[in-house]
Amino acid sequence: MQGGLRDLRKQVYRIFAPRKGGKLGYYTDWFIMLLIIANVSAVILSTVDTIYEPYAQMFQSFEIFSVAVFTIEYVSRVWSAVEADEYTGAISGRLRFASRPLLIVDLLAIAPFYIAVTGIGVDLRFLRALRLIRLFRLLKLARYSTAIQTFGWVLKDRKEKLVIAVFANGLLLVVSSSVMYFIESAVQPDQFSSIPATMWRGVAALTTVGYGDMYPVTMSGQFVGAITAVLGIGMFALPASILAAGFMEATENKLDERKQCPHCEKEVHLEQLEKIEQ
Amino acid sequence: MQGGLRDLRKQVYRIFAPRKGGKLGYYTDWFIMLLIIANVSAVILSTVDTIYEPYAQMFQSFEIFSVAVFTIEYVSRVWSAVEADEYTGAISGRLRFASRPLLIVDLLAIAPFYIAVTGIGVDLRFLRALRLIRLFRLLKLARYSTAIQTFGWVLKDRKEKLVIAVFANGLLLVVSSSVMYFIESAVQPDQFSSIPATMWRGVAALTTVGYGDMYPVTMSGQFVGAITAVLGIGMFALPASILAAGFMEATENKLDERKQCPHCEKEVHLEQLEKIEQ
Amino acid sequence: MQGGLRDLRKQVYRIFAPRKGGKLGYYTDWFIMLLIIANVSAVILSTVDTIYEPYAQMFQSFEIFSVAVFTIEYVSRVWSAVEADEYTGAISGRLRFASRPLLIVDLLAIAPFYIAVTGIGVDLRFLRALRLIRLFRLLKLARYSTAIQTFGWVLKDRKEKLVIAVFANGLLLVVSSSVMYFIESAVQPDQFSSIPATMWRGVAALTTVGYGDMYPVTMSGQFVGAITAVLGIGMFALPASILAAGFMEATENKLDERKQCPHCEKEVHLEQLEKIEQ
Amino acid sequence: MQGGLRDLRKQVYRIFAPRKGGKLGYYTDWFIMLLIIANVSAVILSTVDTIYEPYAQMFQSFEIFSVAVFTIEYVSRVWSAVEADEYTGAISGRLRFASRPLLIVDLLAIAPFYIAVTGIGVDLRFLRALRLIRLFRLLKLARYSTAIQTFGWVLKDRKEKLVIAVFANGLLLVVSSSVMYFIESAVQPDQFSSIPATMWRGVAALTTVGYGDMYPVTMSGQFVGAITAVLGIGMFALPASILAAGFMEATENKLDERKQCPHCEKEVHLEQLEKIEQ
Repeated sequence: MQGGLRDLRKQVYRIFAPRKGGKLGYYTDWFIMLLIIANVSAVILSTVDTIYEPYAQMFQSFEIFSVAVFTIEYVSRVWSAVEADEYTGAISGRLRFASRPLLIVDLLAIAPFYIAVTGIGVDLRFLRALRLIRLFRLLKLARYSTAIQTFGWVLKDRKEKLVIAVFANGLLLVVSSSVMYFIESAVQPDQFSSIPATMWRGVAALTTVGYGDMYPVTMSGQFVGAITAVLGIGMFALPASILAAGFMEATENKLDERKQCPHCEKEVHLEQLEKIEQ
Repeated sequence: MQGGLRDLRKQVYRIFAPRKGGKLGYYTDWFIMLLIIANVSAVILSTVDTIYEPYAQMFQSFEIFSVAVFTIEYVSRVWSAVEADEYTGAISGRLRFASRPLLIVDLLAIAPFYIAVTGIGVDLRFLRALRLIRLFRLLKLARYSTAIQTFGWVLKDRKEKLVIAVFANGLLLVVSSSVMYFIESAVQPDQFSSIPATMWRGVAALTTVGYGDMYPVTMSGQFVGAITAVLGIGMFALPASILAAGFMEATENKLDERKQCPHCEKEVHLEQLEKIEQ
Repeated sequence: MQGGLRDLRKQVYRIFAPRKGGKLGYYTDWFIMLLIIANVSAVILSTVDTIYEPYAQMFQSFEIFSVAVFTIEYVSRVWSAVEADEYTGAISGRLRFASRPLLIVDLLAIAPFYIAVTGIGVDLRFLRALRLIRLFRLLKLARYSTAIQTFGWVLKDRKEKLVIAVFANGLLLVVSSSVMYFIESAVQPDQFSSIPATMWRGVAALTTVGYGDMYPVTMSGQFVGAITAVLGIGMFALPASILAAGFMEATENKLDERKQCPHCEKEVHLEQLEKIEQ
Repeated sequence: MQGGLRDLRKQVYRIFAPRKGGKLGYYTDWFIMLLIIANVSAVILSTVDTIYEPYAQMFQSFEIFSVAVFTIEYVSRVWSAVEADEYTGAISGRLRFASRPLLIVDLLAIAPFYIAVTGIGVDLRFLRALRLIRLFRLLKLARYSTAIQTFGWVLKDRKEKLVIAVFANGLLLVVSSSVMYFIESAVQPDQFSSIPATMWRGVAALTTVGYGDMYPVTMSGQFVGAITAVLGIGMFALPASILAAGFMEATENKLDERKQCPHCEKEVHLEQLEKIEQ
C-alpha cells in the first residue's frame, strides 16, 4: 500500500474518531449533524403538496447530494477502521466494524436509495415507503446526541421497574377494556364492536387523551369509565415517573461531571461518546 | 393408603409448593402462566367476529383443554395440601386450604364452565357473562406476578393516605358537579339532566380526559368548569402521587434485596411468594 | 337556674365538646356525620326525576327530620357553650361562640329552611337555590373530617408558593388566550368571539382537558396551541405539585404522631380537632 | 443647570430606584402595577362586543390616560438615570440606560400608540394588531413580579436539562407524526394531509389534550396512537418535572431568605430586584 494513501487513511480515521479529529473532525461532525436535520426537514416538508410541487427538482437534487455525502462518510469510516487496534485485518476487521449498531444505521440510511435506483425488487409501494425509511436517518444523530444516549441509558438502567409498571398497566387495560366491552357492546355495538377495539378507547381514557370518538353511554359504563380514568392517572403516570426520575439522575450526573473539570468540558463529553461507540 | 400414592402426593405437593418444586415445578409454573395468558388472549380475540367465526371450533376446544388443565391443577393442589404441616386432616385441612383467597380464585376460574355444562340455573344471559367471568382467570396470575403482588402491598401500605385523598376527591366531585348542575341544567336540561349525570362529566373534567360529550355553555358554567379543571389536576393527581411513591419504594426495596444476594435471586423471590400465599 | 337544668347543660356541653363526650359523644358524632352524608346523597338523588317523583313525600319528610336534628344540635351547642371558661356570659358568651366559623356553617345549614317556611322574601328562584344551599351542609363535616382539615392546613401552609404559581398560570392564560384570539378570530369569529371566550378554551388546553368544542384551525393558531399545550403541562402542574407535596408532608406528620402513641390514637386526633375548632 | 431642577431629578431618580423610593416610591410602584393590570383587563374586555360598544369612549379615554402615565414614567426614568454612578453622561449614559431590556419594554408599551397617532406607515391591519401589542404592557410587570422573575431564573438555571428534554420530545414528535402520517394518510387523506398537519395531532395526543378533531381510524394507526399516548405521558412530563423541581427549589430559597431576616423582608426583596434590573 502506498505511503500517501496510508497517511490519508490515518487522517480520515482521526477525523471520524471521537476526541482525535481536531478542528477538521469538529467541523465534519457539525456538517453531518446539520445534513441529517436538513434531510429530516426535507422529508417532512415534502409531504406538504404546496411546498413539494414547485420545488420537486430541488428536493430530488438534495436527496442525491445527501446520499452522496452519507455514502462517502460510510465508506470512509469502514475503509479507515483498520487503523484502530481492535479492527485490524483488511476484511475481517472491517466486517466486525461494519456490524456495530451505529454502522448498520449508517448503511440503512443509504441502502434504500441504491435499491430503488437499481430497481431490483422495487414496486410503487416500496417507493412510497422509501420516504418513511429516509426518516431513519434521524438515528444517525444517536452518534452525536446526548439526549438519545441519555434515554438509551435510562431505559437500560430502569428496565426492571419499567417492565413491572408496563405489565401492571397492561393488566389494567385488559381488565377495564373487557368489562367496558361487556357493558357497552349491548347498547353501542358499532362503537364497542370487540375487546381490541375497546382497548383503543381504553388507552385514550387511561392516558387521559379522551379523543371523544368513543365513550360509554350507559350508567354502569360511565361508572366503570370514571373508575378507570381515576386509576389511569395513577397507573399510567408510573412509567412516566420512573423515566423522569432516571432522566433527572442521569443528566445531574452528566452535568456534575462536566462541572468538576470546567477546563476540559469537551474532553469528558467525547470520552463518554467513545465509550458508547466502541 | 398405598405407599405409591403417598409418594405421588408428596411429589405433587412439591411441584406446586413454592421453592421446593425443582425443575418440574419451574416448568409447571411457566406452563400454567402461559396458559392463563393464552386464555385471556383467546377471550379478547373471540370478541372480534372476523377472528372468532372461522375458528369457533378451535376456540371451544381450547376452552375445554384449559378447563381440564386448571381442574387437574386445582384438584392436585387440594389433594396434596395435607402434606403441609399446617393443613393436616383429610377433610378439615383441605377445606381450610381451599378457603385461602388464591384457591378460591382457582375454583372460580373453572366453576362457571361446569355450571354451564350441567345447565343448572343457566340462561342465555349467564352464558354471555361466562365469557367475562373467564377473564377472572387473570387473577390466577397473582400467584406468579410480582407486579400484582407489589400493587397489593402498596395499596395495603398506603391505605390511610389513599382513603384521605379519595375522600377529598369525592367531596370535590360532589360539590363541583352539584354547582355545575344547578348552573347548566337550566340551559342544557338534556345533557345535565341530574347531579349523578353531571358527575360523569365531572370525572371526565377532573381527570382531564374531557370526552367532549358534555360541556358547559354558559359563562358561569365555563368559569366553574375552568376552576374545576385546575383543581382537578391538583386533587386527582394525589392518589397517583401516593401510589407512585409507594410503588417506587416497594420496587426499590425488592430490587435491593435481590442485589444483596445475587447468587440466590430466585430463592428471595420464592420466599416472598410463600409469605404472600400463606 | 335550676340545678337539674344546670346538670343537663353540663352533660350536653360534654357530649359536643371534643375529647370529653365519652361513649354518648362518640355516638352523637357518628350519628350527625351519617346524617350529613345522607342529606347530601338525598340532594343528589332528588335531582334524578325517576328517583325523586315516586318518593317525593319521603324526601320531604327526611328533610324535615334532618332540619329538626340539626336545629336541636345547633341550639344545644349554643345553649351549653357557656360551660366553657372562654364563653361565660349568658348572651355575650353565646354570641361570641355563635360567631365562630363552624357555628355559622351550622346556622347556614338550617336557616334557609326556616326562611322558606316563613315565606319572607321567598320566590320560586329562591326555592330552587334552596336545594343547592342544602349541599353546604357538607361543610358541617369539616368538624369531623381529617381530609378537609388537612387540606385547609396545606392551603394555609403553602399559601405563598401557591399564589406565585397561580399568578404565573394566570399570566400564561391571559397571554396565550389573547394571542390565540387575535389569530383565530379572523377565521372562526363565532367560536373565538372574544378574549374571555378564548380563555375558556385556553383553560381546557392548558389543563389538557381538551373538550373539543373549540380548537384552532389556522396553521399559526395550531402552532400557538401546540406551544401552549406543552407549556400548560409544565405550568398547570405546579399548583398540583405544591399541593401534593404539602399533603404528603401533612399526612406523614399526622400518621407519624399517631404511631408514636398507639394507645391514645383517639386522644391525638381529638386534640388536633380542638385546636382547629377553637 | 438650575439647582431646583437638579433636586427634582434626584428625587425622581429615588422614586424609581429600587430600595430608595421611600413611601412615595412605594405608592408609585403600586400605582403603575395596578395601571398595567387595568390596561390588560381593558384590552381583554374590549374584545367582548356587548361590553365594548356601550363604553367605547371610556375605553379610548382610559387608553390615552394610560399612555400619558407610561410616557411620563418612561421620560422620568430616562431623564433621571444620569443620577446613577454607572450612567453618567447626558446622552451616552441615558442611551446606555435606555437600551436595558426593561426600558425597551417600557418604550414598546407606548411607542405603537404614537406611531398610530402620527399615522406614519399605518394601515387597518396595523391598527388591529395594536390592541394585541398593548398586551405586551404585561411585560412591564416583570419589574415588580416575583413570579416572572422566578421563572426567568428557573429557565436560565435549568437550561441544559430543558434543552435535552425538549430535543428528545421533538424527536418523539417527528418520528411518531411521520409514522402516523404514512399509516393514516391513505385512509383519511383530508385529515392527515401532510406531516406538519399530523404533528398538530401529535402534540394534542402527546400532551394528552386530545381535541378530537383528528384521530386514527386504522388498526395500526390506533396502535401507534396508543403507544404514542403512553410515551407522551412520560416524555412530555419531563420538561414539566424539570420546571417544577426548579421552581420549588427557587421559591424555597427565596422564602427561606426572607424568613432569616423577618424585620427587613422588604429589603431582601428589593435587593433581589436591583440585581435583576442592573
